[in-house]
Amino acid sequence: MINLNKRPGKGSKSFTLAGLKFATCCSGTKYKNRDDLLLIVLDPGSHICACFTVSTMPSAPVIFSKKNIRKAQNIKQNLVLLINAGNANAFTGKQGLIACENKAQALSSLFTCDIKNIFFSSTGVIGEQLPHQDIIKHLNLLKNKLSESGLEAASKAILTTDLSSKIYTKKFKIDNKIFTISAFAKGSGMIMPNMATMLAFIFTDFAIDKKTLSTITRKSIHESFNRISVDGDTSTSDTVFVATTNKKKVELTKDKKKKAIDVFYNELKGAMIDLAKKIVIDGEGATKFITVRVKNAKTVYRARKICFSIANSILVKTAIAGEDANWGRIIMAIGKTRIKLEITKLKIYIQDFLLCKNGQGISAIDETSLSKALKKRNINIKVDLAEGDNEFTVWTSDLTDEYIKINADYRS
Amino acid sequence: MINLNKRPGKGSKSFTLAGLKFATCCSGTKYKNRDDLLLIVLDPGSHICACFTVSTMPSAPVIFSKKNIRKAQNIKQNLVLLINAGNANAFTGKQGLIACENKAQALSSLFTCDIKNIFFSSTGVIGEQLPHQDIIKHLNLLKNKLSESGLEAASKAILTTDLSSKIYTKKFKIDNKIFTISAFAKGSGMIMPNMATMLAFIFTDFAIDKKTLSTITRKSIHESFNRISVDGDTSTSDTVFVATTNKKKVELTKDKKKKAIDVFYNELKGAMIDLAKKIVIDGEGATKFITVRVKNAKTVYRARKICFSIANSILVKTAIAGEDANWGRIIMAIGKTRIKLEITKLKIYIQDFLLCKNGQGISAIDETSLSKALKKRNINIKVDLAEGDNEFTVWTSDLTDEYIKINADYRS
Repeated sequence: MINLNKRPGKGSKSFTLAGLKFATCCSGTKYKNRDDLLLIVLDPGSHICACFTVSTMPSAPVIFSKKNIRKAQNIKQNLVLLINAGNANAFTGKQGLIACENKAQALSSLFTCDIKNIFFSSTGVIGEQLPHQDIIKHLNLLKNKLSESGLEAASKAILTTDLSSKIYTKKFKIDNKIFTISAFAKGSGMIMPNMATMLAFIFTDFAIDKKTLSTITRKSIHESFNRISVDGDTSTSDTVFVATTNKKKVELTKDKKKKAIDVFYNELKGAMIDLAKKIVIDGEGATKFITVRVKNAKTVYRARKICFSIANSILVKTAIAGEDANWGRIIMAIGKTRIKLEITKLKIYIQDFLLCKNGQGISAIDETSLSKALKKRNINIKVDLAEGDNEFTVWTSDLTDEYIKINADYRS
Repeated sequence: MINLNKRPGKGSKSFTLAGLKFATCCSGTKYKNRDDLLLIVLDPGSHICACFTVSTMPSAPVIFSKKNIRKAQNIKQNLVLLINAGNANAFTGKQGLIACENKAQALSSLFTCDIKNIFFSSTGVIGEQLPHQDIIKHLNLLKNKLSESGLEAASKAILTTDLSSKIYTKKFKIDNKIFTISAFAKGSGMIMPNMATMLAFIFTDFAIDKKTLSTITRKSIHESFNRISVDGDTSTSDTVFVATTNKKKVELTKDKKKKAIDVFYNELKGAMIDLAKKIVIDGEGATKFITVRVKNAKTVYRARKICFSIANSILVKTAIAGEDANWGRIIMAIGKTRIKLEITKLKIYIQDFLLCKNGQGISAIDETSLSKALKKRNINIKVDLAEGDNEFTVWTSDLTDEYIKINADYRS
């Protein structure tokens, strides 16, 4: 359970990583009085991998970066990432790709690196051409501002409708050596796997080969970003980058090395789960953080399908916003999946109150305690199918009139 | 295009059908100062067929009626329908089914008919036991009130969060004989095929065998109620009943009879489309009636999937509520279906304004005219895939903060 009182990004001291530098500025392309352009540069010797949106309408930076991530980067050169907020450069046709190529050319000269070492993310309005010349003319300035301590500023420069920045930073130990993960993300609407309108940038100094890093990145995403949903919509721009400076090595036997990678996998997964939950908490207009857990299912598929049907149901989300233990709507959401169940075995809990079993509601409920429990910010919905031993969990937010206001006004 | 100025149910003169009678009263089970119980009785010789929700959590009246509809009714007896509003008798276990059986026993005695000639619908809160004794004690009163002219009152007694009743009534001619369809429906939330939280009751005097009536009922539902969506949620209670008194026959040659059935099919489909659209117009908190049409698709499946992805996208619905021609969100909704398309062939129109082609937005748009067009109540979204010759259309509503208010407060 995430501690909601410790608001993300507030007062957190983020750990720096040797060989990882940031710089931000206001590009003037959309926002006028805040930084909206972020440059990240990693020292030669670093590795990077990434996962991208499954949308069949990917943005130009997604197309560009996906192509580059598949190529072997030049390990003797810098890795360069450039991110802008306010314009998604999505559905912008050839011009959108040309914008990426021009930015890449400029960065390639500036950092004397191959094009394939350069990656982009853009988030914001879909369908508007990116004024990439306005971005390019700020690159020199950004290069001069590069600093290892810029993580907080970086986490702010990529935000759009987010209310707060989302940072994760932790030191962990393997074989008495200390390693670091420092990461940040954005996203609060168009949130639904795979992977939601979200960008995440996760950095470490734990030395690991690119192939293993890719494998555990993918595994970690399944356990984190692919388990959240704010509104059931999937963006054209979603990207998670994971990079290591490879600065700190563990010299171990083969057996111990496997163990070390397991520890790192857990740390990476932990970082992603933390950021995923922070995105849900910052869900547009959200007042509740809802954990939907389906347990004792025959298969993970069944548990997952029922989880998302509940988490994405507008009627369930509005009931929770209204602090109403409306388990009838949960029944509705389960029923519409068309998964055949033994109804009499089904049990539904909200805030650990058992609300129905044997195919019907339970009348003897302490309504006063339940009502009090529903006023909490963390809401737990648990469905016990009593048919097997698989389970799945999804994190989501409630749906309030504030969400409508944000999205009827904002052009994303 | 439905005429939105002619509000449904207002000032419409509905046609009576010989052998079809209605009676309503206030049962006191939920609503205190309005009729919420409806009895419908058809003369001996009538036929009835029905379609039910695909939810795997069907309500007790759905389970009960579904069983009866499969049996051969006793043609020499009345057909009896009893509908209540305010309590869905869904997820009420054995007690819920006992409630149906007890009501059926009482009606069977009252109308001297077999149990298999009796049908129920219940709409309202899920998970609360139906106080069926309170209903049964009103049956005598209802029997005495039965009248052929009670359609308007009937259409009102079944409403829950609906703002207005939904009536369709029309005379049509086959071979110089005049026939009638009179029908009504309810539904404004939990609306998504198949078939939305909705009840519909459609009556005719056109004589037709039960098997053919079933076939064209199913076909008509695919063209109407299965093409609407308010919130993507599917209820446990959805039912469409279609019944004929069989009072008026066409005595024709085999060829002409086939033609007559085609005419009737079109009339039945017309009635269902009208009622389906009225449900969307009355969608909870809706301010816009949106027609989403995907044309020139390789297959109907592709067109349908894209249609519903657009129609159910919260972000598209809120953009339309905000009168914003936000075609970027339509791109997002198309992309998330994971259907692979040739992006450069794709064209998107809102209110007949071409907004994107060749994989990018069109800059030369008359924004003033477009902005004016978006203020209309009827909104048309058209997507041209330019890959085949199949199409699909879905009707939906926008999503406003009023929807949230209704559903955060109302326990359904």
